[in-house]
Amino acid sequence: MLDDIEIARAARLKPIGEVADRLGIPGDALIPYGRHIAKIEHGFVSEARHRPRGKLVLVTAISPTAAGEGKTTTTVGLGDALTRLGRKATICLREPSLGPCFGVKGGAAGGGHAQVVPMEAINLHFTGDFHAITSAHNLLSAMIDNHIYWGNEPRLDGRRMTWRRVLDMNDRMLRHQVNGLGGSADGFPREDGFDITVASEVMAIFCLATDLADLERRLKRIVIGELDARSYATADMIKAAGAMAVLLKDALQPNLVQTLEGTPAFVHGGPFANIAHGCNSVIATETALGLADVVVTEAGFGADLGAEKFLDIKCRKTGLQPDAAVLVATIRALKMHGGVAKEDLGGENVAAMEAGFSNLSRHLENLRKYGLDVVIAINRFASDTDAEVARLRQLCAEAGAPVALATHFADGGRGAEDLARTVLEVLDGPRRQPFGLLYPDDLPLPAKIETVAREIYGAASVEYDGRAARKLAEYGERGFGGLPVCIAKTQASFSADPQRRGAPSGHVLPVRDVRLAAGAEFVVAICGSIMTMPGLPRVPAATRIGLDAEGRVVGLS
Amino acid sequence: MLDDIEIARAARLKPIGEVADRLGIPGDALIPYGRHIAKIEHGFVSEARHRPRGKLVLVTAISPTAAGEGKTTTTVGLGDALTRLGRKATICLREPSLGPCFGVKGGAAGGGHAQVVPMEAINLHFTGDFHAITSAHNLLSAMIDNHIYWGNEPRLDGRRMTWRRVLDMNDRMLRHQVNGLGGSADGFPREDGFDITVASEVMAIFCLATDLADLERRLKRIVIGELDARSYATADMIKAAGAMAVLLKDALQPNLVQTLEGTPAFVHGGPFANIAHGCNSVIATETALGLADVVVTEAGFGADLGAEKFLDIKCRKTGLQPDAAVLVATIRALKMHGGVAKEDLGGENVAAMEAGFSNLSRHLENLRKYGLDVVIAINRFASDTDAEVARLRQLCAEAGAPVALATHFADGGRGAEDLARTVLEVLDGPRRQPFGLLYPDDLPLPAKIETVAREIYGAASVEYDGRAARKLAEYGERGFGGLPVCIAKTQASFSADPQRRGAPSGHVLPVRDVRLAAGAEFVVAICGSIMTMPGLPRVPAATRIGLDAEGRVVGLS
Repeated sequence: MLDDIEIARAARLKPIGEVADRLGIPGDALIPYGRHIAKIEHGFVSEARHRPRGKLVLVTAISPTAAGEGKTTTTVGLGDALTRLGRKATICLREPSLGPCFGVKGGAAGGGHAQVVPMEAINLHFTGDFHAITSAHNLLSAMIDNHIYWGNEPRLDGRRMTWRRVLDMNDRMLRHQVNGLGGSADGFPREDGFDITVASEVMAIFCLATDLADLERRLKRIVIGELDARSYATADMIKAAGAMAVLLKDALQPNLVQTLEGTPAFVHGGPFANIAHGCNSVIATETALGLADVVVTEAGFGADLGAEKFLDIKCRKTGLQPDAAVLVATIRALKMHGGVAKEDLGGENVAAMEAGFSNLSRHLENLRKYGLDVVIAINRFASDTDAEVARLRQLCAEAGAPVALATHFADGGRGAEDLARTVLEVLDGPRRQPFGLLYPDDLPLPAKIETVAREIYGAASVEYDGRAARKLAEYGERGFGGLPVCIAKTQASFSADPQRRGAPSGHVLPVRDVRLAAGAEFVVAICGSIMTMPGLPRVPAATRIGLDAEGRVVGLS
Repeated sequence: MLDDIEIARAARLKPIGEVADRLGIPGDALIPYGRHIAKIEHGFVSEARHRPRGKLVLVTAISPTAAGEGKTTTTVGLGDALTRLGRKATICLREPSLGPCFGVKGGAAGGGHAQVVPMEAINLHFTGDFHAITSAHNLLSAMIDNHIYWGNEPRLDGRRMTWRRVLDMNDRMLRHQVNGLGGSADGFPREDGFDITVASEVMAIFCLATDLADLERRLKRIVIGELDARSYATADMIKAAGAMAVLLKDALQPNLVQTLEGTPAFVHGGPFANIAHGCNSVIATETALGLADVVVTEAGFGADLGAEKFLDIKCRKTGLQPDAAVLVATIRALKMHGGVAKEDLGGENVAAMEAGFSNLSRHLENLRKYGLDVVIAINRFASDTDAEVARLRQLCAEAGAPVALATHFADGGRGAEDLARTVLEVLDGPRRQPFGLLYPDDLPLPAKIETVAREIYGAASVEYDGRAARKLAEYGERGFGGLPVCIAKTQASFSADPQRRGAPSGHVLPVRDVRLAAGAEFVVAICGSIMTMPGLPRVPAATRIGLDAEGRVVGLS
């Protein structure tokens, strides 16, 4: 089989106007970025968002393993299959981050015959949204330190600034630094550091904002640290939000591209799935729902993280409700959850798969707690044996969940037609339970964390580091107790220990730190060590990426 | 009079396809970025660059003062006037840098009725070229530290790395920093810092590269520091150049926009005019020359810096030759060169203007040393008196230089028709002297610096700090002696002392430091203190920039 970039390059792309036409987007609402990418104008977006809405399908997955699950490819394959079955379908994905492209990962626009294209552009600068977010974030950073440098009013406490800087780059050297060295004209020395752009609160705000006015309202509310008087300092107090909104204005318009098979795809926003909420922009999702009959979207990591945040943060804030969920798994990954090491995945092992099914089963139960009807999607590998598949079908039947096998990676949309039919049965049938969120807004913050820990993670209890507990209490006292929580935890396990696969229970969730994202409107609870600035591996993918003699990109896959 | 953004917003822009049509650029060679901006495809560019070429007019100026001279507006006005006179004209400008927009300066796309548009887009993210340059630069930075972190071969000497990081932001806190703090997983502590993106060698390379292959060749040659064995370490040694070229591939295609009057404008690249060469990209200039009959382009700061580098670096490397130069001055600025303070510029002062004419006269003589025919352009202000104008005309006549008054700021192209006619007389007439560079390639580096100091600055001698002299000798020994020099000096004076206006002579040029830009292919000589990362003022322009109720940008002017 060809590699991703070769498949993408061989594809015959439709002009973006034709793709837009499928969704009834008029030409004058398109802002082209080349021939195969367009942004959709604010004016049309604000009208389309308020039309009668299509059905929303949330694609999520079991806890990720090194074996790979294929959530993005399943989203693409399902969208293409729905199109093949005659539905007016579209998909909504996050934009890939540039930094990881040059590390281990390569591109992040799907894979095989289930990709969004133009793959190179999407994986590299695309329409510049992340660059705009980087600029807006760092403008605030520069304005904070400049405000302190000149001693402007209101007086900021330079020792208590929490706003860092960002770059869309994997660069461990920037995690912890002392800035402002060099002398009195060069600022004032203080501890600081850079996160990767996807971890920026500006990214989360961008993805949750419903329009430009809401964007600016949220930017103003960003808490940057404290005033000399210990009350919270905001971006508004140093008059930074207007210029930040100006930098983000064009970027906030959703991006339209296409799959390899020509299904329209909204690829917009890309918040980290740990310290942010990990799904594409509200504006893109709502626009898609106003234009298509079925919208397939994806949330980051496993369902305990991605789906939980999609539901308890994004849906809570917007009133969005998925009409069905697709829970993606592979037999290989289930075997890893059953205790098999990656290098031993070759042979048949029904028992291990059965043991690992506990992970899938827990995610399934969790999604049902929101009243969701769930379809299990098995992303099939050639190495899966008939016995493994048969037993898996049986386990799903016992769990009362419809299941479909899909081969979209090798076969494109044709390979996901069974899955699409199974999803359509759910969408076209009556809703079995009412949709509901996991906890109400007015539950105190610690109780919200405890609810997620108990109901979703299977934890027995939550333990707070002393400072985390104090800060959490302070957020409540200062009027932020009504916000939802965004839990940053390893994606590899329901527990905070990445080694505990399957469906651990009775464990303790350790909350090491908490952070207030007042503009994004959630409180982050950090459980265990969370990396907000990745590093590069010993041999970065960048060393293999380059241009060939014809000036074409090679090595990006 | 309306402010810049109001004038720009009131303009009726042509679709970019119509603008391209004037130059015979076919629609399929355009890569649209919205309706009024396009990049021109590499394929068409490489063909157009080799067509018979139009005439090239270099716009430069007297030494800048706080009164302002209007080099960019003159470039725009002259282009528009040439169009009005029936010539197939185009202009070539640098892209504005984002950082300074939020500081003192506001936008940098011309002003009044002599602007390039869409002004907001050009001043903000435009086509993302600077973001691409920032990414490519910082990818190299991350790969260098990652290479050291993992102890990869060849062994880099972590104490002798000279490659810094960049952001397109005015942020003094990042000038000097210690990175790599936090522990063994977070790199290794070392001194480092950020420059503004326009100061990056990648920016200079981008602007001097003739095509993608030349770009990659130059990126490979960047000297990043030293190996353990004290020889130079290059970007090629850590396999970074391929991925950097991939990040720059699309950006390298020139950007086409228009003036308020619809004259096609190439706005591409934006190297600093002190530690880099300060003019727009070679690719854009050559493409413009292949498509238009007259191309008007601008070089940064006064003629001692901008024009000297345009000629001795850009022209030397490419074989470009201006067919005429326009030397821009204002009566106000001449009076400042004659000793008047900015606050005293109100009244008539023929004597001061006459004294300050020495600055203009020196620049004129200098330009003639290259064999250039020079037209003096007086950017007229309403406050200029008839007596001042009459005397200035007389002085120009005595200097043997044609002079024209222009009012393009208030009147657009109509206000620069006299100037255009004067320029056309030169262009259409016989060349009076052959074009020649100031020094040959094979002159030793110190002699090159001394030639510029003596011939252009009027200095008596050059003094080197000990380390600068040693490094300069080392560059020669290591095979870089054939490169031209790029002198970083205050723009406010012919001397290194910004207080010495007019035409100082007999002074000493102090060379404090030198830097090798092996990829850009010049040696930087730093004379006096040069800021490579600006700061923000007490009240940054950013505090006034924002969106109005209709979502339009305000405060950017």
